[in-house]
Amino acid sequence: MSDPVFLRPLTAPDADKGQAVVFGPDRALLLDSGRSLAPWTIAYKTYGTLNAARSNAVLICHALTGDQFVASSHPVTGKPGWWEIMVGPGKPIDTNRLFVISSNVIGGCMGSSGPAETDPATGETYGLSFPLITIRDMVRAQAMLIDHLGIDKLLSVIGGSMGGMQALQWAVSYPERVVSAMPIACAARHSAQNIAFHEVGRQAIMADPDWYGGSYYSRGTQPSKGLAVARMAAHITYLSEPALQRKFGRTLQNKGGISFLFAPDFQVESYLHHQGMSFVDRFDANSYLYITRAMDYFDLAADHGGILAEAFRGAKTRFCIISFSSDWLFPTAENKRVAHAINAAAGNVSFVDIKSDRGHDAFLLDEPEMFATVRGFLNSVAVSEGVA
Amino acid sequence: MSDPVFLRPLTAPDADKGQAVVFGPDRALLLDSGRSLAPWTIAYKTYGTLNAARSNAVLICHALTGDQFVASSHPVTGKPGWWEIMVGPGKPIDTNRLFVISSNVIGGCMGSSGPAETDPATGETYGLSFPLITIRDMVRAQAMLIDHLGIDKLLSVIGGSMGGMQALQWAVSYPERVVSAMPIACAARHSAQNIAFHEVGRQAIMADPDWYGGSYYSRGTQPSKGLAVARMAAHITYLSEPALQRKFGRTLQNKGGISFLFAPDFQVESYLHHQGMSFVDRFDANSYLYITRAMDYFDLAADHGGILAEAFRGAKTRFCIISFSSDWLFPTAENKRVAHAINAAAGNVSFVDIKSDRGHDAFLLDEPEMFATVRGFLNSVAVSEGVA
Repeated sequence: MSDPVFLRPLTAPDADKGQAVVFGPDRALLLDSGRSLAPWTIAYKTYGTLNAARSNAVLICHALTGDQFVASSHPVTGKPGWWEIMVGPGKPIDTNRLFVISSNVIGGCMGSSGPAETDPATGETYGLSFPLITIRDMVRAQAMLIDHLGIDKLLSVIGGSMGGMQALQWAVSYPERVVSAMPIACAARHSAQNIAFHEVGRQAIMADPDWYGGSYYSRGTQPSKGLAVARMAAHITYLSEPALQRKFGRTLQNKGGISFLFAPDFQVESYLHHQGMSFVDRFDANSYLYITRAMDYFDLAADHGGILAEAFRGAKTRFCIISFSSDWLFPTAENKRVAHAINAAAGNVSFVDIKSDRGHDAFLLDEPEMFATVRGFLNSVAVSEGVA
Repeated sequence: MSDPVFLRPLTAPDADKGQAVVFGPDRALLLDSGRSLAPWTIAYKTYGTLNAARSNAVLICHALTGDQFVASSHPVTGKPGWWEIMVGPGKPIDTNRLFVISSNVIGGCMGSSGPAETDPATGETYGLSFPLITIRDMVRAQAMLIDHLGIDKLLSVIGGSMGGMQALQWAVSYPERVVSAMPIACAARHSAQNIAFHEVGRQAIMADPDWYGGSYYSRGTQPSKGLAVARMAAHITYLSEPALQRKFGRTLQNKGGISFLFAPDFQVESYLHHQGMSFVDRFDANSYLYITRAMDYFDLAADHGGILAEAFRGAKTRFCIISFSSDWLFPTAENKRVAHAINAAAGNVSFVDIKSDRGHDAFLLDEPEMFATVRGFLNSVAVSEGVA
């Protein structure tokens, strides 16, 4: 275990940088593509204390652009952790009681092996020679980390969006190791519309001449404009039309009226620009390509003869699925479909659709019903597992 | 009247190229920005014959990427007209009975004055020195064309999407000249979400180094990659999630399975690529900037003290508004809002929401209920106006 190495300058160099494990050539990570990574690194961060029975470990899986800094300052941006509202002492995921682990997904850019890292075989930055990855690969890497930490069973695997895909995949890949799972605002497959939006983002990145076929690292540049466009397009899908209308409507930047120029006239434009520009300071464009592709490939039913229920056959995991009524990226119906499949496999599942106009992003926001659901479910699981 | 000059090579040089009127320095087009165009050109195409009473003229207004070739071969692409399903002899908009006029909007790139044309004041291509335009400016230009054609009253003004915005604006700007109007799949204002999607497209274009600040014409290039990304993003908004799922789902290009490459694996990706690539062959990137901006600026209520009904106060125009149930770009609720406002102004309006899963694009497709509605409404208006 060592400090992870970050590719980007740290704004908060005194922030806890978390830890990293390097698995050597004898512990290759076998990938769905048939390729493997060795040696490879997984960067992670923990909160709370593992109890003597090793029974209070909760794994939190991050979304597309998230990372291991769930509940503590992000060393690159200096901003609070992305789920501090949910995780910490006394919070719904209570670190006074639970040992929380979160790792950067492989393919990511916060210390785990990814396209921006050096390929040990060549001494060069991977770029596009990094193998394509899947959600199952991400989960396989996390399982090796959990082994490394000496943890046999996870009290819960929790995540929103792509994190929810991982929570589902955990329960399917390692049913005996997952006591409970909370997939939030996700789906058992990426839809055609979602693949389409991802492809627009990838094309925007790859159209940027500063991308250089993925080998921009050695040129001291990055496809910032393309990545910003990708982020802007994606960001619209994280919100809802009513939330955008309520938050911005047609409010102008300048009260004097429209400018008859192409500079941002509407507040919603400036907001999007800010989202795009701040993203490129903390995220690697190739990681964006790899991780979106992993999401596109996700289809739990396809791995089980096309029958989603088969994925959950015999699972003892307790599931709690949460969706948000205005989420059009991972709509209520897709979340419900997972709950139905678990039911059809005679599994144990509760399903909560939370009324909110905040769209997909709701899972990151102050949503009291989500907090109450997470707190109640985790408490019930902890009690039944004898966690104090 | 003369043949319009097209900037792009004609695939179908023997196709009817339509006509153009050049208004001289004494007939400047005054714009909402305070600027004006003189001389300026409007290119148009007509179908059918104007009757002796000049009472059977119908103006069809095109959408963002449409043009005057409503019902005849497009001279640049060689493809059929964009609304041949709707307009022609015996069709719902029956050219055996009606005289159909359609013009390319100003700011466009099919023969009307726009950023790709030569600025008569400098002898250089306009580029971004072309003035920004509004939907009202487009309509003001069309009114001058209608004057030029010696037509006092239009039996109907019809259009979908941005064409519907123009139909509404016609009834508001020239209520005494518009017997009836059929705004289809549109709104009285562009929403925050729609402005956001437009801004993503514009940023994609402007991020392309081949854009050269809008002055790419003299360099023999065009921002094709950026324009393709803009088109791909927009195209997703023209469809519906269910239609994408039905049409493509997660079907792969290659039956052998996923490639673990960034080339298109899913059919929906190849479809989007095709949409992007074929668009750049026929459309000017700067026109895309100008026309999307005009749509963003559209807000009929804002021009009337914030009260939409005031826009229609005293209007004698008969309105028929059509929406599609799965259109999320111009949702049923936005169309209905216009109908309510006309009602509130004691106007004459019928409103039809057509159940379809084809999203916004439905207005261009084979939708029998739309055809029946258009045919019935136009027949009723024609009869009451004494058109044979």
